[in-house]
Amino acid sequence: MEKVKRTERIAAITRVLTERPNKIINLSLFCDMFSAAKSSVSEDISMVGESLLKYGLGTVETVSGAAGGVRFRPFAEQEKNRAFVEKLCEMFSDEDRRLPGGYLYFSDLLSEPELVRGMGNLIAGKYYDTKLDFVLTMETKGIPVALMAAEALRVPLIIARHATKVYEGSAVNISYVTGSGKIETMSLSRRAVKEGQSCLIVDDFMRGGGTAGGMISLMKEFNINVEGVCFVLALKDSKPVLPDRTCSLMVLDEMKNGEPIHVEPAGWL
Amino acid sequence: MEKVKRTERIAAITRVLTERPNKIINLSLFCDMFSAAKSSVSEDISMVGESLLKYGLGTVETVSGAAGGVRFRPFAEQEKNRAFVEKLCEMFSDEDRRLPGGYLYFSDLLSEPELVRGMGNLIAGKYYDTKLDFVLTMETKGIPVALMAAEALRVPLIIARHATKVYEGSAVNISYVTGSGKIETMSLSRRAVKEGQSCLIVDDFMRGGGTAGGMISLMKEFNINVEGVCFVLALKDSKPVLPDRTCSLMVLDEMKNGEPIHVEPAGWL
Repeated sequence: MEKVKRTERIAAITRVLTERPNKIINLSLFCDMFSAAKSSVSEDISMVGESLLKYGLGTVETVSGAAGGVRFRPFAEQEKNRAFVEKLCEMFSDEDRRLPGGYLYFSDLLSEPELVRGMGNLIAGKYYDTKLDFVLTMETKGIPVALMAAEALRVPLIIARHATKVYEGSAVNISYVTGSGKIETMSLSRRAVKEGQSCLIVDDFMRGGGTAGGMISLMKEFNINVEGVCFVLALKDSKPVLPDRTCSLMVLDEMKNGEPIHVEPAGWL
Repeated sequence: MEKVKRTERIAAITRVLTERPNKIINLSLFCDMFSAAKSSVSEDISMVGESLLKYGLGTVETVSGAAGGVRFRPFAEQEKNRAFVEKLCEMFSDEDRRLPGGYLYFSDLLSEPELVRGMGNLIAGKYYDTKLDFVLTMETKGIPVALMAAEALRVPLIIARHATKVYEGSAVNISYVTGSGKIETMSLSRRAVKEGQSCLIVDDFMRGGGTAGGMISLMKEFNINVEGVCFVLALKDSKPVLPDRTCSLMVLDEMKNGEPIHVEPAGWL
């Protein structure tokens, strides 16, 4: 009987922990769930942690203190991450993606849940040790990746908009200059964030850094600290919007006619 | 030794299955992962399935045939679903959400990954037995819930836009009339979808059904079959955009001054 019970507990514990990444779960939740002693549950959790680590499926950490417990983080080895990004680079480099004007079509890749989850987990992995209150993105293309990063970090996803919407309540608007020299507006509901918070900016692509610069200005208006800025793809040699705090998963060479599209993993990967 | 090994396998199998909802995973993946016999893996999977079912954490199903294997679906009992939606109704009914003009502020609730995941799983649960090629939403507010539904269903999320973007390639544009009588444009990249596909439309709110009607017209332009339309919230007595194929998680009474906000679970919950 004991044998069956343990496997049952292990399966349920694995699901509960991995379903809520980065959430500290008190052991008493499992004790109640299984009417089991803390020592048994604690042993189960160690087994889960060892197994996930062994197969590169994430880490389970114990957090001590009054609000302590265990938490799961979707973390893979450097090697696995690199292989994933190399696969992405191959997909992004496909010649069929070339659009007139030196643009690259990759909305289809940002619409695949499994791919954006992988990207989001990778981005989140860089910021687990940073105190963050939310992830910020600008509508529209970066939302899926930003949401996955926010879920892995267990913080809300705040979305800046191009224009004030009546159902967002009163908003703060700023103007910013895009990479192509156009002046655009960015709007954020006053209710969305609070002064003194810290955030991570996530977006799909950085060319001139105009939109990211706009988001940073917007955060200044709210007195919010920007801990980092992370893109899925950045144009090679583009100036980091916040030196030392800007990164991307991949780097794209300027697209020229007659030359193949070249996308490679960013240096930190 | 055998005892330790089984718990190890159970934890890893649970993670691999639940991480990729609705994907059919061939048993040989696990056999290779653990250098184990198919019979042992098969037994492990039964144990995982029994445990997840017992604790209301989802279902594991065996799919027979050449491309067969096992798949996980995040499915909860009716009772649990109802409790979740009742909790949501309470959150949505908060008087602080009232905006001028009879509008309701709920962007903050759509920015909480755990909540949108719950909503997305619930919506997906209605469509597991329907052949779907993608989930469609219109930017911006519905994207998080639509993405979570798409992930649970294991299909891409396609996002219609207000305007053509240069990085989306050639696009089909349609005009539609919003609930407030304005004429707006909806745009979808030609590359995003293929003739003859089937889709599920997911959006955050239905008032007059204008936007949803626009999405249905857009799908007609591409010769795509709309299998269903599902909203997080719908105004009470609003006309279903596709009779028998329209649903919502919650229903909102017309907001009147001096009367409390009233949101209740939809009838099917």
